[in-house]
Amino acid sequence: MKLNIAVLPGDGAGPEVIAQAVKVLKAIAMEFNHVFNFTNGIVGASAIDKTGSPLPEETITLCENSDAVLFGAIGNTSYDLDPNTKIRPEQGLLGLRKSLGLYANIRPVIAYEDLLNKSSLKKRQIKDTDILIYRELTGGIYFGDKILSQDGNKASDICEYNRYEIERIAHLAFKAAQTRKGKLALVDKANVLESSRLWRRVVQELAPQYPDVNVDYLFIDNAAVELIINPRQFDVILTENMFGDILSEEASVIVGSIGLLASASIGEKHAMFEPIHGAYTKGANKGIANPIASILSAAMLLEHFGLDDEAALVREGVDKSIKLQITTPDLNTKYDHITTTKVGDFIEDFINNPDETNLN
Amino acid sequence: MKLNIAVLPGDGAGPEVIAQAVKVLKAIAMEFNHVFNFTNGIVGASAIDKTGSPLPEETITLCENSDAVLFGAIGNTSYDLDPNTKIRPEQGLLGLRKSLGLYANIRPVIAYEDLLNKSSLKKRQIKDTDILIYRELTGGIYFGDKILSQDGNKASDICEYNRYEIERIAHLAFKAAQTRKGKLALVDKANVLESSRLWRRVVQELAPQYPDVNVDYLFIDNAAVELIINPRQFDVILTENMFGDILSEEASVIVGSIGLLASASIGEKHAMFEPIHGAYTKGANKGIANPIASILSAAMLLEHFGLDDEAALVREGVDKSIKLQITTPDLNTKYDHITTTKVGDFIEDFINNPDETNLN
Ligand SMILES: CC(C)[C@H](C(=O)O)[C@@H](O)C(=O)O
Ligand SMILES: CC(C)[C@H](C(=O)O)[C@@H](O)C(=O)O
Repeated sequence: MKLNIAVLPGDGAGPEVIAQAVKVLKAIAMEFNHVFNFTNGIVGASAIDKTGSPLPEETITLCENSDAVLFGAIGNTSYDLDPNTKIRPEQGLLGLRKSLGLYANIRPVIAYEDLLNKSSLKKRQIKDTDILIYRELTGGIYFGDKILSQDGNKASDICEYNRYEIERIAHLAFKAAQTRKGKLALVDKANVLESSRLWRRVVQELAPQYPDVNVDYLFIDNAAVELIINPRQFDVILTENMFGDILSEEASVIVGSIGLLASASIGEKHAMFEPIHGAYTKGANKGIANPIASILSAAMLLEHFGLDDEAALVREGVDKSIKLQITTPDLNTKYDHITTTKVGDFIEDFINNPDETNLN
Repeated sequence: MKLNIAVLPGDGAGPEVIAQAVKVLKAIAMEFNHVFNFTNGIVGASAIDKTGSPLPEETITLCENSDAVLFGAIGNTSYDLDPNTKIRPEQGLLGLRKSLGLYANIRPVIAYEDLLNKSSLKKRQIKDTDILIYRELTGGIYFGDKILSQDGNKASDICEYNRYEIERIAHLAFKAAQTRKGKLALVDKANVLESSRLWRRVVQELAPQYPDVNVDYLFIDNAAVELIINPRQFDVILTENMFGDILSEEASVIVGSIGLLASASIGEKHAMFEPIHGAYTKGANKGIANPIASILSAAMLLEHFGLDDEAALVREGVDKSIKLQITTPDLNTKYDHITTTKVGDFIEDFINNPDETNLN
């Protein structure tokens, strides 16, 4: 297979982790005789530095003309602490999601057997957790009108949803549930929000089309608790943009490190793959950022194109690195000095020689 | 002291738990020679059943003419599952918050030494957690315009904040931090929301007035993680309405049961005290609802009026009930059949005879 992949490393630790994902994809291409062409683009704070814009036109064009986008991270603390700047790195990411129409953000939350100890949660509570979060990504309060009054004393954001925006991602979530445990949980705040009531109504209307899927409804406040005290009750979670942001990041505590969580963002025409951790500015350029989330995002990219064996091999490599503790310090108490690059190298080696790679 | 207290038991397990709080307040009045007058009012689903309105005019009047309101819970699953009803129990609670001007919702999150085992989190992570959450309660997306289009295909909610709404609660939070560990964390989503940027700006502007307070800024998605992996880093948390709803409920996982979390809702003229758990419909009328959150809310009521010794005695009673495991099943693995009422009776007895109450 031939794939043109746009690579947007972005800010902070983005470039370091994305380099490992590219390394792994190159090894896969070699091993399975695919042609993957990688073209780099700029985005985020680093793009602002170079061009004044967090999302230059060429970056959009590059992504539009590619089969897939591999995205690192954006963000920089100096922007975070200045609520007055008009231009911010996040506009790069949000602009890309919107212009590529990436409405469905899919975030798997899987508790690795070998990492149960790393979680803040008790082992028996998280063992076997396997959740797939469907977060709506191009609507809601992220994209509704934002107004700051002239005198600066009043600010507002609109959370808005159209039926079709809910339907299209709901169908994906229902279908995913059908191939899994047949359980879908809609998370909203329908006891307070009109937009949440629309979500609940639409999902209730679609449910009869999926008689083999059992639907649950939770309020976000309650879901934030249930996710921690009983994560195994969940199979597929469907939710709107902001609640999905909060819940999926919260879910990282189950897994033990946010450096493990991958995501796919899917639209009608485009697809982007991205670790859910941010730029991790304070850990950048130290070789300590965990590349696994990026590498697993690359695996999701492969799956997106039906390259299931290829993805499985990447996942095996990741499993092995975790089992042997060839991991960055967020997960590792056994070996010092296992850098971002070394984790990538290990998984690359594994792909090249699946039967031989070992610590010794 | 003479206090007129409006009692709104509400729905589900509300009446059962509030009865225990009233019992405890009566014992305190007796012991300390206060005059507490209790007058009941209706609210929520039970008020809809009786009058068609979740917040009858008389209930508002009663609360306005009282020194304090003791609130149980509202809500009913049948309303939750019907996104089309126009009248819902929650309107009773939200209407009360708004009409009484209860803009500051204060939710303490304290890990009880004797309950560290009950938490889903590992003991060493939560020991000594003592957080005070200041949640804005009468603004934001809860109260902004809500629109459902005529054809029912589009719905929106506005999240709106005025500078003064942020300032008044921020001052309270800064002052609270001054009497505690001197740390304030503002939680927002300033990288995406205009309203969050106003929060961040206002707090940054006020900070110099409180040079002894150290201010931290966190995005809500990150805060949802930090609250679990390192709750002890927090002293006072300040946040807007919706994020406060999510974070404070999430914080119950630290404490081990949502049945332990109390709250005070404060305005210029009025004050309301309320357990943060909801109606707990499925546990109602079984004697299994934990009354401690309500009893601790009563302690916050006492503190609000400067009755610190009285509040301390209530808290001692609660501590003792926990130590001796005179607690409802959510916390109790030792004794069967300790009902909601028995917990209340025990704490009442303790107040009457602090030195004698014991299991044997
Ligand atoms: C960086 C930020 C705008 C983004 C979001 O809130 O969507 C991030 O938190 C994420 O989850 O991808
Ligand atoms: C019942 C509901 C409207 C309420 C809220 O969201 O504020 C509750 O969850 C709370 O936290 O007091």
